[in-house]
Amino acid sequence: MRALGVGLIGTGYMGKCHALAWNAVAPVFGDVPRPRLAMLCEVDPALATRRAGELGFARATADWRALVADPEIDVVSITTPNAFHAEMALAALEAGKHVWCEKPMATSLADAQAMARAAATARSVAALGYNYIQNPAIRLAAKLIAEGTIGRISHAGIEMDEDFMADPAAPFSWKSQAASGHGALDDFGVHAFSLLTLLLGETRAVMADMAKPYHERPLAEGGTRAVETHDVASLLLRFASEASGLVALNRSAWGRKGRIALQVFGARGTISFDQERLNEIELYLAEGPTDRQGFRRILSGPTHPPYDRFIPAPGHGLGFNELKIIECRELLRAIAGEPAHLVDFAAGLRIERIVEAAARSFDEARWVTL
Amino acid sequence: MRALGVGLIGTGYMGKCHALAWNAVAPVFGDVPRPRLAMLCEVDPALATRRAGELGFARATADWRALVADPEIDVVSITTPNAFHAEMALAALEAGKHVWCEKPMATSLADAQAMARAAATARSVAALGYNYIQNPAIRLAAKLIAEGTIGRISHAGIEMDEDFMADPAAPFSWKSQAASGHGALDDFGVHAFSLLTLLLGETRAVMADMAKPYHERPLAEGGTRAVETHDVASLLLRFASEASGLVALNRSAWGRKGRIALQVFGARGTISFDQERLNEIELYLAEGPTDRQGFRRILSGPTHPPYDRFIPAPGHGLGFNELKIIECRELLRAIAGEPAHLVDFAAGLRIERIVEAAARSFDEARWVTL
Amino acid sequence: MRALGVGLIGTGYMGKCHALAWNAVAPVFGDVPRPRLAMLCEVDPALATRRAGELGFARATADWRALVADPEIDVVSITTPNAFHAEMALAALEAGKHVWCEKPMATSLADAQAMARAAATARSVAALGYNYIQNPAIRLAAKLIAEGTIGRISHAGIEMDEDFMADPAAPFSWKSQAASGHGALDDFGVHAFSLLTLLLGETRAVMADMAKPYHERPLAEGGTRAVETHDVASLLLRFASEASGLVALNRSAWGRKGRIALQVFGARGTISFDQERLNEIELYLAEGPTDRQGFRRILSGPTHPPYDRFIPAPGHGLGFNELKIIECRELLRAIAGEPAHLVDFAAGLRIERIVEAAARSFDEARWVTL
Amino acid sequence: MRALGVGLIGTGYMGKCHALAWNAVAPVFGDVPRPRLAMLCEVDPALATRRAGELGFARATADWRALVADPEIDVVSITTPNAFHAEMALAALEAGKHVWCEKPMATSLADAQAMARAAATARSVAALGYNYIQNPAIRLAAKLIAEGTIGRISHAGIEMDEDFMADPAAPFSWKSQAASGHGALDDFGVHAFSLLTLLLGETRAVMADMAKPYHERPLAEGGTRAVETHDVASLLLRFASEASGLVALNRSAWGRKGRIALQVFGARGTISFDQERLNEIELYLAEGPTDRQGFRRILSGPTHPPYDRFIPAPGHGLGFNELKIIECRELLRAIAGEPAHLVDFAAGLRIERIVEAAARSFDEARWVTL
Repeated sequence: MRALGVGLIGTGYMGKCHALAWNAVAPVFGDVPRPRLAMLCEVDPALATRRAGELGFARATADWRALVADPEIDVVSITTPNAFHAEMALAALEAGKHVWCEKPMATSLADAQAMARAAATARSVAALGYNYIQNPAIRLAAKLIAEGTIGRISHAGIEMDEDFMADPAAPFSWKSQAASGHGALDDFGVHAFSLLTLLLGETRAVMADMAKPYHERPLAEGGTRAVETHDVASLLLRFASEASGLVALNRSAWGRKGRIALQVFGARGTISFDQERLNEIELYLAEGPTDRQGFRRILSGPTHPPYDRFIPAPGHGLGFNELKIIECRELLRAIAGEPAHLVDFAAGLRIERIVEAAARSFDEARWVTL
Repeated sequence: MRALGVGLIGTGYMGKCHALAWNAVAPVFGDVPRPRLAMLCEVDPALATRRAGELGFARATADWRALVADPEIDVVSITTPNAFHAEMALAALEAGKHVWCEKPMATSLADAQAMARAAATARSVAALGYNYIQNPAIRLAAKLIAEGTIGRISHAGIEMDEDFMADPAAPFSWKSQAASGHGALDDFGVHAFSLLTLLLGETRAVMADMAKPYHERPLAEGGTRAVETHDVASLLLRFASEASGLVALNRSAWGRKGRIALQVFGARGTISFDQERLNEIELYLAEGPTDRQGFRRILSGPTHPPYDRFIPAPGHGLGFNELKIIECRELLRAIAGEPAHLVDFAAGLRIERIVEAAARSFDEARWVTL
Repeated sequence: MRALGVGLIGTGYMGKCHALAWNAVAPVFGDVPRPRLAMLCEVDPALATRRAGELGFARATADWRALVADPEIDVVSITTPNAFHAEMALAALEAGKHVWCEKPMATSLADAQAMARAAATARSVAALGYNYIQNPAIRLAAKLIAEGTIGRISHAGIEMDEDFMADPAAPFSWKSQAASGHGALDDFGVHAFSLLTLLLGETRAVMADMAKPYHERPLAEGGTRAVETHDVASLLLRFASEASGLVALNRSAWGRKGRIALQVFGARGTISFDQERLNEIELYLAEGPTDRQGFRRILSGPTHPPYDRFIPAPGHGLGFNELKIIECRELLRAIAGEPAHLVDFAAGLRIERIVEAAARSFDEARWVTL
Repeated sequence: MRALGVGLIGTGYMGKCHALAWNAVAPVFGDVPRPRLAMLCEVDPALATRRAGELGFARATADWRALVADPEIDVVSITTPNAFHAEMALAALEAGKHVWCEKPMATSLADAQAMARAAATARSVAALGYNYIQNPAIRLAAKLIAEGTIGRISHAGIEMDEDFMADPAAPFSWKSQAASGHGALDDFGVHAFSLLTLLLGETRAVMADMAKPYHERPLAEGGTRAVETHDVASLLLRFASEASGLVALNRSAWGRKGRIALQVFGARGTISFDQERLNEIELYLAEGPTDRQGFRRILSGPTHPPYDRFIPAPGHGLGFNELKIIECRELLRAIAGEPAHLVDFAAGLRIERIVEAAARSFDEARWVTL
């Protein structure tokens, strides 16, 4: 069988992350054929050529449609700005390619719906880049919950904070334009929803508030412009399981760099996690002598798959990029027809529905049922 | 001038805490006359006598009205179950006594209103036991915010978790009865509101959800009984300053023993705190070289008044009980006619209004403006 | 029986700490008769009178011998500079009084030996102020070790850092004079030895290094003076049990305010503690499924005696001063002829022998066996 | 210019780590030509072939001498058991190849000396695998120290704990045989010395103790065998700078998985780090208002080179394997004749001399000067 041909569209933050994963997935996992890095697409042809050299792709193009159409390409990594996801993913599925598309899925629910519809009838795999669910620590959390270790879940909270919009003196950018979406809610909130869905199941209803820490921002050319998006979003949730939840999103949170602080409360214990310390998970079990109960800090190690494929020693630490390598392995599993731990387009659409319900809830100041 | 005569009603958890404060306030602060511990009231006369001996009170009674009427009593500590607060406080104010009443103020808004009205016309001091605002670390937070160190505040969150209701096998108690109030919202949520009011000012509107982790609980005599209160309450807030906020309350949170995790986000920095580590506060300042910015963990010390009155060495740690000693000192300040850092009955009523608005918001599934 | 008459010598840092304990011990514990605060001694008569008023002592004196001789005094708290401990303790024991003397015991081994000899033949109690061993968290550690929960102990380390000597620009003080002792080794290192003795038993041999972070310090009057003491001391230890150990002492450690970081390694687990978070202890047990093993952070609570005498709710936090109240209760136990958890003069002498052996080891650059 | 030809000897823990680095170095850094993964050597020919496929090497062999001699090989990664390092490195240098050899350098000082001699006269690069010094957080520490940010260094401590030898029931293995070396001292202590050398400079004298937590271990075939190595080693150090230091090594430390807890104390501040949280470094500066001084937790980010080559967003976390990729980049720099941040064989020999001095110190129970 010929090696899987990979096409990569986009070479920014996530484009490089995909490229690193495609380079590393075979050496790390060993049990998967080495993919062929066939073609890379970047808008500027010169940059495309340079990046292809750096990232190990055989050919370069500035025409993403050419990449999608190329017979050597079996799977397309889509890492462009969100507004392009739908068009590219639809074209790739249409061309019979597997698709690995970065989150969020699309910039409108209609687009996401179209993508999910296309994926439902396609014979290829369509997966989204929700890499945080690949963390061995998060997988342990999911396993412990599924096995009932902390009992029936009653409540969960997740707080997601970064500070890339925290500086009020930073010039107005596209992230403050309504065209980019709602703001914190879809810009990075979707990660929170992917984690909650994994750990607690589907969301049934949502009540949202959104806020603008800064109402205007300076323009590079002088003067200011009104901010159209919301850097803060706060949500009350009800899950299908009847558990309740809370999501706090803030991209103007000075000092937080990648905080995704998660807590899941059950009838027999609690799980706590923070993405800024992605190799640690805390577990409290209401069992044994009460004078020695406490939150235990579990360091990721070889007993938390697939950590062992990276390092045989515990507590040595995986990095953010390595979560994407795991995701890539799951994608290869799915392509091979094996069960895979992924957010496919159908699941991605359910996440987009939460976003849309939250936005509506905010607009109408009321609970919205999904 | 004769020493201030103290009467204490109640000798449970908070009664003992008040008694310890009355014993310690003069030795700790030095600059205040030693109060006379004149009389203690406890329902059971024998217990009253025993506790008076232990806690250093000269006389004991089982009749709180006698205590309130006693001419030797200048100030009354009210630490009984919440349902008695209003009646006792009103009687004490009527008798011209100063009142130091535990939180929450009362079990109905009407009672709280009556108390605030009585206090408004009384010539004596009426204060509530919101001891967490006395923490030198919290006072530092308030000072930093007031001085603009972290800039204009855009958002704040507070999470308050304990696990005293977390065991589903624990028998049904009065805490699960509607007569005790709403549950987490008023049982301990009021502390959160006192902190947010100190740091962010008045609350303008609230949207609340409440939940029952366990719908029934076992009865000691066999069978089960439906739970009437909500161990979980989650609130979205809008402050008068236009800042937004979030409050998460959970008294069924396994493993959390006294968590009050607070975050305040400003235009120039962030403050973070957790009551389980009450001698630490974290401060992030967006200033100086970016490669060395980070949350700094500030340990309470003599530069954070009034820590220095307890210990001259930094980082040695105050305890929960010592916050009450500080509160007692503030009460003495108020009685002496000096400016004091206290929640008086007028401020307490504003907290009760938040509780009432939140409960209404939950009932009507909509935002309620205060 | 008449109430125990208390005499306090010294009203500085530890003098106030003793006074607070004497005021609080009866209200906190309830099961002990309230002591009479009979007399206080301070060098300056006016200050003595003022402090007596503040701290609740009936009489004041500037003559410590008068205090020791006073028939109303049953127990003498000695909190003066270390150089006076021996003379005062010997006089008090001679006068038949109980003695509660702050650590370190004395400034020479000969003095400590004389004190221990006097205590051995006295009919009164002679105890030292090693309050850190009173911490409920430390008592839990001792209990877990004694019960074999972490198996046979192979190794322990303790690191004790503060920064009160860290500023090289601070003027030369008596703490840099040889007359004050060796420096970090005896100034605060003795606390480390009291903890290690509690948890691991007697020390058999020691190898020490000492260092001067700053070789001279500025004089207030201009110029500099050579530093005679060592702010840093590092020790290798062998215990009678054959366990090995390590002690790191540093009083020029910028940023550390009260760090006493302890680790005890056993065949089945590990215990970890830091005095800067005195209400937490960490326990690792090599048991149960390996994928959920981790250090558990245990918060002090009512199941860790005598925390319950202070606060009925877990995780609310004791403070440094409250450890002294526990110590005071233990002293009262000893005076009542009950078994008590204390460092008496015999045990204190063994600690001083470690200090002396360490100093000799450093001078002679060799292991010294005790 | 033809691409650099890489030969890898060994495919265990560190072999795979090297292979991952060789695969990733070009995509991550972009500014370096992609190396040719030319040949891999593993003792078992079948395994060699399989691993070559997995790890992306063109050819496989079971004969390391063939690999070293192969004209297509320019650089040899040596990741075999320590006993083979010297022979292989010498052969590779002799053949004119660049050498990238895992730590520790060799199993005898004589071997290390021979290696350093060979490297001194070779025209190729000879580097050792001390990857912890590549951590952007550690580089920041080195930079801050070099720039004088925390002032002149007076003292440093490092504690290195893992638990891979902690189970007394684990069967006797080669790690307990004297032939494997001293135990903790050289097995992993060398990492500590590489860090201290980077941050504090050369070591002048050492005083060591070593201990055996378990004196015998069970044999697989029944019975027990005496343990010959020391799982615990504790060292007092004096640096050429006159700073003092402490090293605590323990490979029987239950619960510690990759702890390398480092503290460096200076005249103006302190730096603290723990490898179990490798993306964080703590910095205390004695500057600014005292009421807001504290250890700041700095999360690695793009301002800490070369973090930015991996991820453009701060606080997202690098992993252990990625430190090896950075080391690989430094090796390529050195091969290109550029200044590189590496431990070369001369520096490696100085580390081995510390090991040898420590072992001698323990044998002779005295300080040994280097």
